[in-house]
Amino acid sequence: MLRFFNGRILRFENGPHITEDEVHISGDTIVYVGPATAEDKNRFDREIDLHGNLLMPGFKNAHTHTPMTFLRSLADDLPLDRWLREAIWPNEAKLDDEAVYLFTKLGILEYLSSGITASFDMYSHSEAYVAANIDSGFRTVLCSGMNDFDADPTDIERDYLHYNQCSDRISYQLGIHAEYTTGIERLKYMVSLAEKYKAPCWTHLSETKAEVEGCIQRYGMTPPLFLDSIGFFNYGGGGFHCCHMTKDDIDMFADKHLWAVTNPASNLKLASGIAPVARMMKRGVRFAIGTDGASSNNALDMFREMFLTTGLQNVLEDNPNACPAAEVLEMACVNGARCMGLENCDDLAVGKKADLIVIDLNRPNMRPLNSIPNNLVFSGSKENVKITMVNGRVLYEDGRFHIDDDPAELYHKAETFMKERIRR
Amino acid sequence: MLRFFNGRILRFENGPHITEDEVHISGDTIVYVGPATAEDKNRFDREIDLHGNLLMPGFKNAHTHTPMTFLRSLADDLPLDRWLREAIWPNEAKLDDEAVYLFTKLGILEYLSSGITASFDMYSHSEAYVAANIDSGFRTVLCSGMNDFDADPTDIERDYLHYNQCSDRISYQLGIHAEYTTGIERLKYMVSLAEKYKAPCWTHLSETKAEVEGCIQRYGMTPPLFLDSIGFFNYGGGGFHCCHMTKDDIDMFADKHLWAVTNPASNLKLASGIAPVARMMKRGVRFAIGTDGASSNNALDMFREMFLTTGLQNVLEDNPNACPAAEVLEMACVNGARCMGLENCDDLAVGKKADLIVIDLNRPNMRPLNSIPNNLVFSGSKENVKITMVNGRVLYEDGRFHIDDDPAELYHKAETFMKERIRR
Repeated sequence: MLRFFNGRILRFENGPHITEDEVHISGDTIVYVGPATAEDKNRFDREIDLHGNLLMPGFKNAHTHTPMTFLRSLADDLPLDRWLREAIWPNEAKLDDEAVYLFTKLGILEYLSSGITASFDMYSHSEAYVAANIDSGFRTVLCSGMNDFDADPTDIERDYLHYNQCSDRISYQLGIHAEYTTGIERLKYMVSLAEKYKAPCWTHLSETKAEVEGCIQRYGMTPPLFLDSIGFFNYGGGGFHCCHMTKDDIDMFADKHLWAVTNPASNLKLASGIAPVARMMKRGVRFAIGTDGASSNNALDMFREMFLTTGLQNVLEDNPNACPAAEVLEMACVNGARCMGLENCDDLAVGKKADLIVIDLNRPNMRPLNSIPNNLVFSGSKENVKITMVNGRVLYEDGRFHIDDDPAELYHKAETFMKERIRR
Repeated sequence: MLRFFNGRILRFENGPHITEDEVHISGDTIVYVGPATAEDKNRFDREIDLHGNLLMPGFKNAHTHTPMTFLRSLADDLPLDRWLREAIWPNEAKLDDEAVYLFTKLGILEYLSSGITASFDMYSHSEAYVAANIDSGFRTVLCSGMNDFDADPTDIERDYLHYNQCSDRISYQLGIHAEYTTGIERLKYMVSLAEKYKAPCWTHLSETKAEVEGCIQRYGMTPPLFLDSIGFFNYGGGGFHCCHMTKDDIDMFADKHLWAVTNPASNLKLASGIAPVARMMKRGVRFAIGTDGASSNNALDMFREMFLTTGLQNVLEDNPNACPAAEVLEMACVNGARCMGLENCDDLAVGKKADLIVIDLNRPNMRPLNSIPNNLVFSGSKENVKITMVNGRVLYEDGRFHIDDDPAELYHKAETFMKERIRR
């Protein structure tokens, strides 16, 4: 049994609010949130004095490609088409299971340092990816990224069944890479799977103008409306990126209660555009936030994404209050969990999983405490992450990683792989 | 004498490049950069083993209002006009010297944690502001912010003479707050001062559309062209923000070799716009980067500004290589120093002031080391700042501040001031 005391608690039920309660954790679960008790101290294996700092639900990275850490800063100076053809695809082809395991772990370290407690990931080499998550104590939802380059699309059904019962920290959702990489036969197969399992379906969606134009040429419809027309969204799900959404796309998303996941840093860096987050929210679309992969961001840092989510909307809408901090914080913590099916990790409450972080308020960027939620979104940074706990286990504390691997050894292996295998 | 060894050194002469040399510092000055020597170890008072980490010139915050830390997150939900009238102006009126001293120190702590070694600041209560910088060991260039609300504009000449000779870490430049807050008589007085001292002149410039429209109504010209027409830029200087620059404005800036200081986070948050940095650079305008004050940003974090400087240009220009990382890094380190008249702090070289930082490369966000300059700009964060040294003194190391004050006491005083004096 673990006890957090002498601090502040941020919860989201009925909007973000802060109290001075304490929190007890038994195993992987939050078992008490309330005023300090006079109970016997011996019941606790560990007591963490928060010294006035903030305990809150962890951030959920709602769209990423974790193993792409190996491509960080590899070819930032190339235009998109050359970047894909010369840097991404030929180098991704050189990845084996061992490399995916290594670079997934590297990404998980970065998540932990940013207060991220779960990821919604789309990548190949599922077995190595899942093993790295299990071995690191991390929580992830893997999403199939079906496309025309996969050897056998029926692997997805096998993976769906297997990974949804292999560990309580692993789950699996259905998805395609994107409309433009997936022919109609495979799309129909994915829709049949969604139908069979009554499962939500996900995809990269309207990320670039070219993608939208291509889909209109192929099918006479935008990607959201085309996919909806074949039943892709009949059981929910949603889209990653959503930069170029028409009014009809947005109406469909709202009416079907689909999720949109915004990836603002990646969209800036690759010159994809700025998602109309505020406009979509006004229409009732629910948002979560993702970092995308380190090849296009290049950081896996939820603080940067939160600031961008609000800041970019202000300029887009010519309104300095277009996307308030409290809503952004809710996207990063609560909505992220819910969109990926982790309803039991969405908030700090009795019975929920202990996926929690401690934010150091005793740093200059958090002072004065005029508004803690606004400080988190507008001036928070990774320097403020004191503790990251996943499933009741402290995996990161005061800059140190509590995982089986020595980070220095992971870094060394990463450099060796790059030197021996990857073209620069 | 101090020695940095066993690491990497980033220098900017002839473009950013990294070597494995060591660096010796005597007093406030870099006295040796080169291969390891076999000299007697006893000559060094301290030897810092870099363990492969990166020693580089500090970041220069080329536009800020440091004492505005007291307004961080105070009224983020108000539109601009109500924000100024209800939150900023009435609360600024309650600041006294003691408060400016306190909140300047708070801002300096934040600069140190972000690897910033000098600031170009515009604020009132100069004496308290300068005292806080001197007492903290920090380096600053204060810029007069003349406007129609100043009691006596001739104070500026007195301050100009006084603060340019009071300390080798303090200097003073001429400037006005903005065209729209400064009537023609006072503008002419500022031009006469610039003429008298052959001094560069600075101003907030074309930050918002409304500012540009107002100036055209008043004088039939955009702010840059109007100010140039009265001789404001005859001895150099430049503008802060520069979001709404016409082709003629840009041509004038390039032809007169003026500096533009971009403040991308503040411009997003206040919905001011996105400066045409790439377009101006193409025409030959030199850029530096500033955080602006914590009331409008709300972080004093050069990593966030660097990412935004490049990322926003990519979307603006529809080109994923519109503003390369190497140039952004040079803006943040070298150009920042040069624009504020600190040519002796612009690079890591023999004879230059020891305003240096150590970047921790042994963190997941810096791995693999595919490109260290790109990692700094695209994935760097305050977690990577291991040491910040100003004028040869280590002021920040491994998360701890080496200044006379206890940060906890500064935080406490800040909260007390907010509680007792400031309307929320």
